[in-house]
Parts: sequence; structure tokens; C-alpha cells
Amino acid sequence: MTQPAREVLLLSGPNLDLLGEREPEIYGSETLADHVATAQHAAARHNLGLRHVQSNHEGDLIDAIHEARKSAVAIVINAGALTHSSWAIHDALSAFDGVIVELHLSNPAAREPFRHVSTIASVADGLIAGFGALGYELALDAVARLLEERTK
Amino acid sequence: MTQPAREVLLLSGPNLDLLGEREPEIYGSETLADHVATAQHAAARHNLGLRHVQSNHEGDLIDAIHEARKSAVAIVINAGALTHSSWAIHDALSAFDGVIVELHLSNPAAREPFRHVSTIASVADGLIAGFGALGYELALDAVARLLEERTK
Amino acid sequence: MTQPAREVLLLSGPNLDLLGEREPEIYGSETLADHVATAQHAAARHNLGLRHVQSNHEGDLIDAIHEARKSAVAIVINAGALTHSSWAIHDALSAFDGVIVELHLSNPAAREPFRHVSTIASVADGLIAGFGALGYELALDAVARLLEERTK
Amino acid sequence: MTQPAREVLLLSGPNLDLLGEREPEIYGSETLADHVATAQHAAARHNLGLRHVQSNHEGDLIDAIHEARKSAVAIVINAGALTHSSWAIHDALSAFDGVIVELHLSNPAAREPFRHVSTIASVADGLIAGFGALGYELALDAVARLLEERTK
Amino acid sequence: MTQPAREVLLLSGPNLDLLGEREPEIYGSETLADHVATAQHAAARHNLGLRHVQSNHEGDLIDAIHEARKSAVAIVINAGALTHSSWAIHDALSAFDGVIVELHLSNPAAREPFRHVSTIASVADGLIAGFGALGYELALDAVARLLEERTK
Amino acid sequence: MTQPAREVLLLSGPNLDLLGEREPEIYGSETLADHVATAQHAAARHNLGLRHVQSNHEGDLIDAIHEARKSAVAIVINAGALTHSSWAIHDALSAFDGVIVELHLSNPAAREPFRHVSTIASVADGLIAGFGALGYELALDAVARLLEERTK
Amino acid sequence: MTQPAREVLLLSGPNLDLLGEREPEIYGSETLADHVATAQHAAARHNLGLRHVQSNHEGDLIDAIHEARKSAVAIVINAGALTHSSWAIHDALSAFDGVIVELHLSNPAAREPFRHVSTIASVADGLIAGFGALGYELALDAVARLLEERTK
Amino acid sequence: MTQPAREVLLLSGPNLDLLGEREPEIYGSETLADHVATAQHAAARHNLGLRHVQSNHEGDLIDAIHEARKSAVAIVINAGALTHSSWAIHDALSAFDGVIVELHLSNPAAREPFRHVSTIASVADGLIAGFGALGYELALDAVARLLEERTK
Amino acid sequence: MTQPAREVLLLSGPNLDLLGEREPEIYGSETLADHVATAQHAAARHNLGLRHVQSNHEGDLIDAIHEARKSAVAIVINAGALTHSSWAIHDALSAFDGVIVELHLSNPAAREPFRHVSTIASVADGLIAGFGALGYELALDAVARLLEERTK
Amino acid sequence: MTQPAREVLLLSGPNLDLLGEREPEIYGSETLADHVATAQHAAARHNLGLRHVQSNHEGDLIDAIHEARKSAVAIVINAGALTHSSWAIHDALSAFDGVIVELHLSNPAAREPFRHVSTIASVADGLIAGFGALGYELALDAVARLLEERTK
Amino acid sequence: MTQPAREVLLLSGPNLDLLGEREPEIYGSETLADHVATAQHAAARHNLGLRHVQSNHEGDLIDAIHEARKSAVAIVINAGALTHSSWAIHDALSAFDGVIVELHLSNPAAREPFRHVSTIASVADGLIAGFGALGYELALDAVARLLEERTK
Amino acid sequence: MTQPAREVLLLSGPNLDLLGEREPEIYGSETLADHVATAQHAAARHNLGLRHVQSNHEGDLIDAIHEARKSAVAIVINAGALTHSSWAIHDALSAFDGVIVELHLSNPAAREPFRHVSTIASVADGLIAGFGALGYELALDAVARLLEERTK
Repeated sequence: MTQPAREVLLLSGPNLDLLGEREPEIYGSETLADHVATAQHAAARHNLGLRHVQSNHEGDLIDAIHEARKSAVAIVINAGALTHSSWAIHDALSAFDGVIVELHLSNPAAREPFRHVSTIASVADGLIAGFGALGYELALDAVARLLEERTK
Repeated sequence: MTQPAREVLLLSGPNLDLLGEREPEIYGSETLADHVATAQHAAARHNLGLRHVQSNHEGDLIDAIHEARKSAVAIVINAGALTHSSWAIHDALSAFDGVIVELHLSNPAAREPFRHVSTIASVADGLIAGFGALGYELALDAVARLLEERTK
Repeated sequence: MTQPAREVLLLSGPNLDLLGEREPEIYGSETLADHVATAQHAAARHNLGLRHVQSNHEGDLIDAIHEARKSAVAIVINAGALTHSSWAIHDALSAFDGVIVELHLSNPAAREPFRHVSTIASVADGLIAGFGALGYELALDAVARLLEERTK
Repeated sequence: MTQPAREVLLLSGPNLDLLGEREPEIYGSETLADHVATAQHAAARHNLGLRHVQSNHEGDLIDAIHEARKSAVAIVINAGALTHSSWAIHDALSAFDGVIVELHLSNPAAREPFRHVSTIASVADGLIAGFGALGYELALDAVARLLEERTK
Repeated sequence: MTQPAREVLLLSGPNLDLLGEREPEIYGSETLADHVATAQHAAARHNLGLRHVQSNHEGDLIDAIHEARKSAVAIVINAGALTHSSWAIHDALSAFDGVIVELHLSNPAAREPFRHVSTIASVADGLIAGFGALGYELALDAVARLLEERTK
Repeated sequence: MTQPAREVLLLSGPNLDLLGEREPEIYGSETLADHVATAQHAAARHNLGLRHVQSNHEGDLIDAIHEARKSAVAIVINAGALTHSSWAIHDALSAFDGVIVELHLSNPAAREPFRHVSTIASVADGLIAGFGALGYELALDAVARLLEERTK
Repeated sequence: MTQPAREVLLLSGPNLDLLGEREPEIYGSETLADHVATAQHAAARHNLGLRHVQSNHEGDLIDAIHEARKSAVAIVINAGALTHSSWAIHDALSAFDGVIVELHLSNPAAREPFRHVSTIASVADGLIAGFGALGYELALDAVARLLEERTK
Repeated sequence: MTQPAREVLLLSGPNLDLLGEREPEIYGSETLADHVATAQHAAARHNLGLRHVQSNHEGDLIDAIHEARKSAVAIVINAGALTHSSWAIHDALSAFDGVIVELHLSNPAAREPFRHVSTIASVADGLIAGFGALGYELALDAVARLLEERTK
Repeated sequence: MTQPAREVLLLSGPNLDLLGEREPEIYGSETLADHVATAQHAAARHNLGLRHVQSNHEGDLIDAIHEARKSAVAIVINAGALTHSSWAIHDALSAFDGVIVELHLSNPAAREPFRHVSTIASVADGLIAGFGALGYELALDAVARLLEERTK
Repeated sequence: MTQPAREVLLLSGPNLDLLGEREPEIYGSETLADHVATAQHAAARHNLGLRHVQSNHEGDLIDAIHEARKSAVAIVINAGALTHSSWAIHDALSAFDGVIVELHLSNPAAREPFRHVSTIASVADGLIAGFGALGYELALDAVARLLEERTK
Repeated sequence: MTQPAREVLLLSGPNLDLLGEREPEIYGSETLADHVATAQHAAARHNLGLRHVQSNHEGDLIDAIHEARKSAVAIVINAGALTHSSWAIHDALSAFDGVIVELHLSNPAAREPFRHVSTIASVADGLIAGFGALGYELALDAVARLLEERTK
Repeated sequence: MTQPAREVLLLSGPNLDLLGEREPEIYGSETLADHVATAQHAAARHNLGLRHVQSNHEGDLIDAIHEARKSAVAIVINAGALTHSSWAIHDALSAFDGVIVELHLSNPAAREPFRHVSTIASVADGLIAGFGALGYELALDAVARLLEERTK
């Protein structure tokens, strides 16, 4: 209990800083700050810390993944539109040993064709998509459970 | 409380009756009965009933979806390999007004190319994939929350 | 006149049992029973009997086609979403010597890409699509005329 | 009754002037004049006038469609091989408010691959294919019925 | 010797019940019963029992494969047109530990393009195609030999 | 000043004669005559003459381009739906030495897939699309400037 | 001998009227009139008449082909860019019983990809491409020989 | 008049800082500073301010678009090679309510295949391509006019 | 009996001379000589002679097929990797009137994509694949039976 | 005149040695020797020598082309099925400075899809296809004329 | 000699900073610092200076390439996963006049399909791939030699 | 030292015997003999022998690879145009246990599309392309180093 909580990195890609403003009929009216708070609350319930990084720069996301190799036990990543083209993020994630959960607010498979491809899927443990704000809670629940299984 | 619980239909497609026996390195060692029990437990926690139908016949799955139009408020569906080819299940689900969650034990996007296509995705509210047995709990949590939102 | 009417098999594939309920803006508000009545009326006008089989099971449709080899002189088939993927129905129809008319309530060519392919077209005598309930009448008129030509 | 009949434009594309001469095993032995007579007869039965235009020029067909915007309530079009490539005819038809029926003597879906694509399908109300001369009657029956529905 | 013979499951997919009637120039004039008798004779020669299941329902074929996990040492499967689209049968077979032989009366590679794809090939031990009735004998010979090798 | 103005050929393809009537939400409410007037005004401002040819016939457009080789210093072309398929117009334009500007009222790249291909682009100096009536002014401004540069 | 010469139709598609002016490095410096003279000379040598039709209109070419069904024993056709897209010309030619030779001045297979497809090839007796003016002589020689063979 | 001018954001993507040095036969000899000056001049003529941002970082361009949501009424964007792959820029632009003009110095459709795809086109109001430095003036003219129309 | 045995040509393509050495986990530990002996034994059992030709040269295989037109009644061919690309071998085989059996030690359909295509399949009577050494026996049994049927 | 004749290399690829025997309905009843005689006669008429090489080995054809760089002024090549796949022959021909004519007895564009691609076309001066034996004469006529033009 | 060494820019893309840690079975156990030291040593041997830039940001790599236009005579670039998608780096390199060598530690052509495409190849002088640490030496040797040739 | 040198097989495919003559702007002016001398010199420097085989016959190259299994420790292969189509060479190389280096004088990735595919890449240790004569030295250096590593 006095032991510092293990950390989960929540990673948000391009344009997620606009949440609550951009296309609310697709992404909902909550802001990114709201989602982070939700996630932090869920993490705490599982005795996990949560660090959040948002950037519109692919390189920043890669840097954060590299850094997480030392500081975090899991990554929850919503890479935004980079999900569909960034093999560099794919390669960075494949060098991360912890749990990886791919998260989307909407369901990419039900939208434009360019969103049907994910470079991240093949290196993630699992995928949660289409549940809006709720997805953050589910993702943290999933992370907690997968960490538990790994320590068995 | 004395009001009968609203029902969720859990639908399992071809070969899921072999769970625990078939390719445990991909699908885990738990049986389908184990998963149904997990799901039932999670449903009960949200004050929801759960009915389970498994069949290796596409037609049975469609019949069950039609029936659910009258009896269920949500469908959690793992259509097995039919996920990748059955437009008839797609059409049946598109005629269901309740909540629909697509569920997979493994992450299809990380497996053979024929599993990268889902006819169900475009008519589901959301997708949970890659978390094994845990997926059943997450799916029921998601159903409960989405039902709650809809009744607001 | 006392001679029993020659029989036409009207075959309805998956989800057509929902007609009148499912997406009425596409399929109209009439039920399948309404359509069958229309077809029966039209058949009678041409002194033809009409037997109707609906199933959500591909196998049932194939069984019915096989059975029709002995009992029917024509098949009017709306195979629903199986139209776009079932080569087994294609093979069954290619073993039927009578008249075959492919029927669709909506015009598949004007809808989603997966509906642009028909496995049935290459073994049908003709195609009627996009006329809703009227299609049943046109199909029976066509059957009657094609039978007439064949007996010349 | 003394009111002049509403007009249907029957439009025939390239090479249809050769009907009865060209590949009779595919297109039958009747001439285009025979088909027009059949169509006129069917139109009259529904108290409709019928004007026929045949041309081997895409531009003439477009001109006729434009002209029909003022004079006709429906178009029955067999665009011949232009069916498979002319987006200009597609655009012209999409500017026509009346009923549009796509007609083919043979079933294009059962012939060469280049005939499997129709630029017209997405702007037509419905499609009749594969019934030879009979198709003209069916098309006019369909037109009459669709006009009736529209005036309800 | 008094020990009951080990069983081979011979599985016949959609439309094979029409053998002898349908397209004899492709499939030969022998009936399915003739082929089963041939296979049974060949099986007996190798001291093997043979159980035959034919169905036009994909689900029945999957059920039979599941059942064979307990009762049979080998499966000889001619899945008819389902060969080209059923990943559910593919998944069922991949859960069967015994010998699997894919059998076709004609040579699919020499026919229509849709028959050039097999979902079964990647989970079968071997393939025999194009030899008509003889194929049943060759398949049983192959099964006997492969079983022999496995018990070495 | 007394020297006759150099001429620009404004070329309008199929269906543009319907402007103002057809799909005004896409093409605006101005008629082709309005656009020609706008263009003529803009041309005059640059001391250029403007001749306008509209036809629904590909051949007429080609004839006009050939004729322009002798009479015009520039072509502004909106080929309508022929933009996406006419290699004959492409070949005709490639034999024209003057300035060529491709013009569209709407932005083809934001519409149906068949409008994403242009046979004209590779032989045009530049492209202006999506600005409605304004496009005519911009095109003439561009023509004037490019002519100026060429005479340097 | 006093019998009038049998006629060959030489058909020239869009832009061939520009020969000698357009891209001489590809098409040579001779004009279409030069080529027609060459062809006429070669025809005469084989005791054949030659009628030439050039048009930038697909419809004119089709009309000419139809007309040739009555007046000509052979067609030599260089359809220009229509070669690569006109199925209507393909259909017209397939209704012509005489000899058909496809002719190109340059070798389309060595140029842009869009020129690698010919709708005409499958209905022509043979193809001559890449020989410039000489092609006209070769084509007439070929026609003469093929006519001779047919009358054997 | 004393009211501060409304601002247009001119956005230049990767490698545009090399203008005047890189491949002048394609991009011309003017520098980016020259183009910005031209644009500023044109903006001023329409009583618009112009802010210019150039970056080789996709993330910087996205940041600038986000910032423009508050400060600018229009964006003129030449995203360089990112035009052909960046869905993140596409998503950022789709969250911008003002006028958007896509600008290219050369005509991408006339260059290498990878330049034929634009992720920006579907969210831009219009496109100007192939006019070199002149494009900046045309783009600002277009912006001014579209703003005017919107305020009507 | 004193009549000389009819001859079967066994043809082995590139790299089959390495059998027993190359990738034994795929091709088994038997050498090509072992396989030829097996085949010879099986041929003798059917009163057939067997001549074997192995070459790494496509031309040698074609020469052998040509020669077989005079000396052999059947060809059993394992063309190695040439199976997937040699249309010249395809053409040679199509000029052979006798029985043709395509043979593979492993199952190409279960290996790399380039092995999924066979130029030989469309000219072979049948295919045997995936049975290793046993395949040679099955192939000879098949040849014997097919010869028998042909002489009926 | 006493000067030795310049030599043309006539090159025949795989299976052409079977001419007269193989598929006479496609390739005619004349043997390769007949064709060579025809070609030699035609060559002599133009005062050209003709050397003929036939081989079923791609390497022999390449060797012959290399050799021709020193001894021949032109190559007439019918590479048989290698036409459709051999880039090595393409590379060899591209190193030959003389005249190159691609020759086919039948019209590949009217046959199976694999024959629609030619690796040779892009390095040949011209193509003659579909004229059977006559093609040899036309090819030699073409060679003679092209040589004449080159020496101008 | 006292003249300062000419500089080579060694450019390392995303994730190369993880070398020695990430997937050592593919990339080896040496760190990026080890590779830079190797390269520096090799450069010195050729009397060349070497500057190294690593970044996970595409924009930084482009900036470095621009900078190198002034300071470096050659670029050795391993762009990591950006190799497969960055046309912006392609454009930057195409504006660099010096020697360009594309370097990969593993052989991309032997790995996942997405690594089979290189945007860099078409603007590089040459490619070295698959030799791990050794590649750095080979690349510098190649640079030295190519510089030498250019100064001849 | 008195121990005989280990041998490297240098393998040159079709048309490489023309080096120095064919397309010197692509392949340089050195002859193949020059390159072999360079390679031999480089091999000697590493105390390696070098045997060179050039052939225009795929079969000869395969034979040489087979022979090398006994006599050589490494293969350096430039298969010419066979690089892009020969799966038989791919299979032969995959049976060679020593070091394999793929070598090209030019950079195939920067040339025609058909040269972008290599059947050899997936079985080679590494690739060197685009450095002309220098490539031979680099390849031998690479071979020497890889051999050294293997003997560690």
C-alpha cells in the first residue's frame, strides 16, 4: 500500500485534444480532460497510477512509448488517425514488454475505409472500440486484469 | 426489484462449443460453459438476465437474433468464423434496435488475413477483442452502461 | 382445368421473414405474407400453383431447390444476403432444369458494395429488382411467359 | 379521358438497331421495331403514350433524357454497351425526376465481366433483365405501377 | 482382430446428394451411394470402418466434424461449394487431430475462378482432385497409409 | 486596341446545359448562361475574347478542340462526366499548344469514386475545382496570367 | 473483271484527322490523307475498293460499321483512343461477318497503361501495330489474303 | 475599417521551405518568401490579414490548424507530400469551420502515382493546382469570395 | 503379356534432385531415386513401364513432354517451382493426348502464396498433393485406372 | 548485288515445333517448316537472308538474340508462351539495335487472360498477330520497309 | 590534409535509438552508439567526417536533410519504419545533390509486406540491407567510392 | 595457409554477358570480365577463392547452386531479370546452407515496376544494389565478414 502504484501510460494521438469540440455526434461531448479523469479514477480503483500524454506529433508518441519501457507496466493507446498509417508507432510498441490496449472512442470499422486498417492491432493485446467515454474504464479494467494474469 | 430482469442475448457462433479443447494457446483453457457463467455473473451484477445460444448453424443464429427483437435489450455476439463472411447475420443485426457488442476472445486483426474483415462491425455499437475470458465481463459492463445511457 | 396446376416455388432467404418490420424505408411496409399473397394471386391468374418456402438456413433453401426438381416448373428466388456469397445455392440452382427468376425488393446495385455481387445471376434466366411488392407480380408474369415459350 | 396520355420515353442505345440480325442466340430474332410495338401496346394498356428514341450516339441519348424532363413521366432505358461505361448518361438520368427502369434483353450478370458493371443502376428505380421481348412488357407494367404509387 | 475397426468419417457437402443427376459431364454418372459403397469397400480393405454424412447445411458438417473428434481417426471431406467460402469448416477441421484428406470429383483449379480458392487446403494433410469415383479409393488408400505412418 | 482580342475557348461537356436545374445543392442555382456571362466579363477584363461551346457529344468537344488549334490561345474545359473516362478528349487536348485549364464546379475528389479519376489532368496546365461560379473567374484570371508568362 | 470491286471500309477514330500535326515523334509526319492514299493504292493492287470514314464521334463509327454489314467485305479499323474504352464499337464489330483488322500507327503496348487494353482485339481477326504508314499496306495485304482464304 | 482584419492562415508543409532551390523546373524559381509576399498582397486587397506557418513537422501543421479554429476565418493549405498520406491533417481540417482551400504549385494529377491521392480534398472547399506562384493569388481571391458568400 | 508394356513418363522439375537433402521437414527424407523406385514398382503392378526424366531446365521438360507424345500413354508431373509460372509447360501438356496427373509431395495450397497458383492444373486430368512418397503410388494407381476407363 | 544478303533472325519459342500438330483449330495445319519456308521466300523477295532458330529453352533464345547483335539486322520473334513472362528475353532484345517485330499466329488478346501481357511489346518496333501463316510474310515485309526507312 | 574533412550525414529514423534492446534476434545486440562508432571509424579511414542525427520525428529528419544540403557531401539513411510511408523524406532527399545510400540492418524484403515498399529507393544511389552492423562499414565504403567517382 | 582457400560462387544470370555493351547509362561501361576480376581481387584479399558462372539458362544457374552445396561457402548472385520471376532459383538457394548475397548493378527499386519484386530476397542474407562495379567489392567484403561471424 505504501508501495508506489504501478503506472499505466495513457497515450492520445493527433486531434484528441479537440474532444468535446470536434464532431460531437461521433466523438461525444466530453473533453479529453474528462476522459483522463475517468481513466485516472478507474486506474486508482485498481491501485494503478496513470500518466497521460497527448501530442499531435508522431515522434512525441514514440518518445513516450520508449520512456514507458522503464516507467510503465501498461499502455492504453488511442493513436487517432495515426492508427491507420504509422508503422513507426507499431515498431515502438513491439519493443514494449508490458500490456498494450488499443482504444477508440468510435468504431473505426464502421466508418470510412481508411480507418479500417490498424498498424497497432497486431502488437496490441486487445482492442476496445465504439464505447465513447466508457471505453476508458473498460480499458483500465482490462489492463488491471491482464497484469494480474501475468503475475500469476 | 420484483420487476423481471431485462435480458441480454449472448450469442456464440460455430466452433465456440469446442472452447477449452481447440487451440488453447489462442483461445485459452476455459470452456464455453465457464465463459457463460462469467457473463451471467457479470449480467446479474448489473441486474440483467442473460440467455445463451450457441450454434454451428448460421440460420440458428439469425433465428435467435430475430427472436431477441421481442425478448432482449442487448446482444453480445461472438459469431466465430461467420464474423468474416455472413452478411445475413449483418442484416439480421441491423434489424435489432437494442445494444449490440461484437466480442472476440483473440484479436482477429492480429491473425490470418481472412479474419481481418468483419461483416458485423458496421452494425455493432462497439467491439471488444483480445481479452479472452475477461472480454465477457467487459462486454456485459459495456452493455449495462450503454443501456443506461439510452434510458437517459 | 381439372389437371392440377403446375407449381412455382417461391423461395425467400434470410431475414425476409422480417419484412414490414425491418428498414421499411428500403423494403417497404408490406409483410412477407402480403408478398406471398400477391404472388399467389398472380400465379393463379396464369393458372399456376405457388408454394412458398422461407428459411434463414442456407441448407433449407438448397433442400427446397432439390425437392423442386421433382415438383416445380419454375423457381422465383430472393435469397436475401445469401445472394452475395452462396455458391452452394448457385450449384443447386444450376441443377434445376426449369425457369429461374432472381428477385429483389430493392435494387442491390444501388446499395452497399457487398450487394453488387450475385452468385445467382449466372444461373438465372432473368432478374427483377427494385420494384418492391410489384416485383412479385412481374416475376410471376415472367415465369408464365417463359414457360409458355419453352413449351412451344 | 380526353386528356392526352402521359408519355413514357423508351430509349435504346448503340447497336440495338441491329436486333433480330445480331447474335440472335443471345438477343432473340425479333427486331427493335417488334419490341417497340410490344412496348407501345403495353403502354396503351396502361393508358400511357410511348415515344421511342434509338441512337448509336451517347450525346443523342443524353439530349433525349434532357428533353424528357419536360415531356415524359418515365424513362425505360436499354443503353446497350454504354450501360457499362457512360457516367454522362448516369448524370443525365440523375437529373430526371420521373420513374426510371433499366432494361436488358439478356442478363448482363451472366455474360462477359465488362457487362457486370452498370453506371445506370444507382439512378434507376428498378432493373429488368434477361427476359428478351417480354422485358418490354414487364418494364411498362412496372412503370405504370410506380407512377400509380407516386400519385397516391 | 476382434478389435472393432477404426472409423473414417466421409463427409459430403451441399449438392453432392444430386450426384449422378447434376451435370454428369462434370461429375460423372455414378450416384453418391455408389461412391460411398466404393469408399466403404476400400476402407474395409484397409481394415477401417467408414461412416458417411451428407448435408446441405454447413452447421451439420461442423457438428459431424466435432463428433468425429471422439469417434474417428480420419476425415475425408468433399465440402462441395462450401470448400470455397467456409472458414467455419476450416476452424472445425483445425481442431481435429486425425488425418484429413480434401477430395474433389472434378479439378476445381480447372473450373470457374470462384472454385480456385479452398479454405480447407491449409488444414488438410493432402488433396485428391479430378479423378471422379476413383478419388474415393485413392483417398482411402491415402488415409490408411498416413495412419500407418503416424503409428510408427 | 484595334487589334482583335485573342480568343479563349470555354468548353462545357455533357449535362452542363442543365445547370441551375440539376442538383442545385451540388452545382448551385446559377445557369450555364450565367456562368458564361461571368466568364466573358472576366475575359474582357483581361482583354480576351471568349467563345463558348457546350455539347453532350464527346465528338463535338473534340471537334471544338481541333478547331481551337487555329483560333484560340487557351481552353478552359469542364468536361462533365467525360472527365473521368474520355481518353479521346485527352488526346485532342494534348495536340493543343495553348494554355489549358481544367475546371469543375464541385470538387470531384470529394464525391463518388468514379469522379476521382481525370483523363484531362495530365495534359492540363492547372486545375480549379470546388468554387462554383467563382471558378470561372479564377480560371480566366489564370489563363490571362499564364498567357502573359508565355509571351515573356 | 467488269464486276465492281469488293469494298473495304477503312475506319479512323478520334484525332486521327490531326495526323501529321499531332505528336509527329509518335505518329509520323504523314497526314491521314497520305495514309488513305497508301491504303487505296494497296487495295487496288488486290482488286479491292476502299471507302474511308473518319469521325471524332463514336456513334458515327458505329453507324459506319452497321452500314458496312451491307456494303463491305472487310473493315480495317484504327479507333484511336476509343480502342481502349468503347464496348459499343466492340458490339458493333461483333455483328459484322467480314474480315476485321485492328490497326495502330504506334505500338499501344509500349505506351501509357491506359492504351494497353483493347475492346476491339477480341472481335478482330488480327492486329497490326507499330509500323506507322506501312501498317496500312500490311493491313490491306492481310485483308486480301484472309478474304482469299475464306472463299476457298 | 478600424476593425482588425480577419485572418487567413497560409499553411506550408514539408520541403516548401526549399522553394526556389529544389527542382525549379517543377516548382519554379520563386522562394517561399516570394509566395508569401504575393499571398499577403492579395489578402490585403481583400482586406484580409494573412499569417504564414511553414513546418516540416506534421504535428506543427496540426497544432496550427487547431490554433486557427480561434484566430482564422480561412485556411489555404499546401501540405506538400503530407497531402498524400496524412489522415491526421484531414481530421484536423474537418474540425475547422471556416473556408479551406487546397493549393499545389504543380498539378499532382500529372505527376507520380503516389501524388494522385489527397487526404485533404474531401474536407476542402476547393482545389487550385498547377499555376505556380499565381496559385497564391487565385487562392486568396477564392477565399475572399467564399467568405463573402457565407456571410450572405 | 509378351506385348511391351505401355509407358508412363514421370517428370520431375527443378530442385527435385535434392530430395532427401532439402528441407526434409517439408519434403521428407526419401531421395528422388527412392520415389522413382516406388513409382516403378507401382507402375509394374499395373503392367505399365515407367520412364523418369528430371531436369532443372524448363526446356528439357518441354522436350520430354513433346517426346512423350510418341512414346507414352500418360504423364505424371511434379514440375517443382515451375508449376507456378511456366505457361510453356502448360502449352506443351495441352498438346499431349494421354492421361496427365499433377503431383506434389507437399500441399502447395498450405504454403507460401506464390505456390497457390498452378499453370498445370487446367490441363491435368487430376491432382494429388500432400502425401509425400505415397503420392507416387496414388498417382500411378490413378493413371492405370484412367487409362482403363479411356479404353472402354 | 554480289554483296551477301543482310540477315534476319526468325526466332521461335517453346512448343512452336509442334505446329501443325497442336490445336490446329487455333494455330492452323501448317508446320513450322512450312512457315519458315514462307518467311524465307518473303525475305528473299526483299533481298534478305533468313536464319531460323527454334528452341524450347529460354536461354537458347537469349543466346540467339545476343549472337544476332553481330550477324543480323532484324529479329522477327514469336516467343510462344515465354512472351507472357520472360523479362530476360525483354532485356536481351532491348540490347539489340536492329529492327524487332513481335509475331503471333493467333491473337493473344482474344485468348486466355495470361496471354494478354507481353514482356516483348515494349521493346519491339511493331506487332503482327492473328494472321496465321500470312503473318510471316507481313512480318518480313515490315522488316524490309523499316530497314529501308532506317537507312534513309 | 589540413583541409577539414568532408562530412557525411548518418541519419537514423524512429526506434533506432532502441537498438540492442529491441528484437535482438532481428536487429542484433549492438547499440546505435556502437553502430555510429563503427561508421565513424570507417568514415575516418576514407578521410571523411561523420555527423549522426537520430530522431523519432519525421520533421527532424527532413530538417537534417535540408541542413545537409549545405554541410554534407553524402547521406547514409536508415529511416526505420518511415522508409515505407514517408514521401516527405523522399522529396527532401530528391533535393539533395550529394551521394545517398539507403541502409537497413535487416533485409526488409524478407519481412512483413508493409516493409517491402521503400519511398527512398527511387532517390537513393544504392541500397545495402541485411548485414547488421557490417552494413555501416559497407555504406561508408560505398559513399567514399561514389564520391571519388563523382570527382573524376 | 597451405590449406586451399574456401570458395565463393559468383553467379551471373541472363544478359550479364553483355555488360559494357548494353545500356551503359544504366549498367556502366565495364565488362563482366572486369567485374569478375574485381571480385576475384576482393576475394583474394579475404583469402577466399572465387568461381564464376554466367548463363542465360535458369537451369544452369540452378545446377551451379546445387553443385555449390558441396564446393562453396557462399554465393553472390546477380540473377538478372530472373530475379523477378524465378521461384526455382529461390528454391535452389533455400537449400544452400552458406552465406547468400543478392547483388544488382543498378537499383531495381528505382526502375520499372516489374523489377520491384525479388524472389531471391527472402532467402538471401543481404542485398547490395545500385553501386555498379563497386558492388562486387562490397559483396565480397560482406561475404568475408558474414563467414567470420558464422565461425565464431
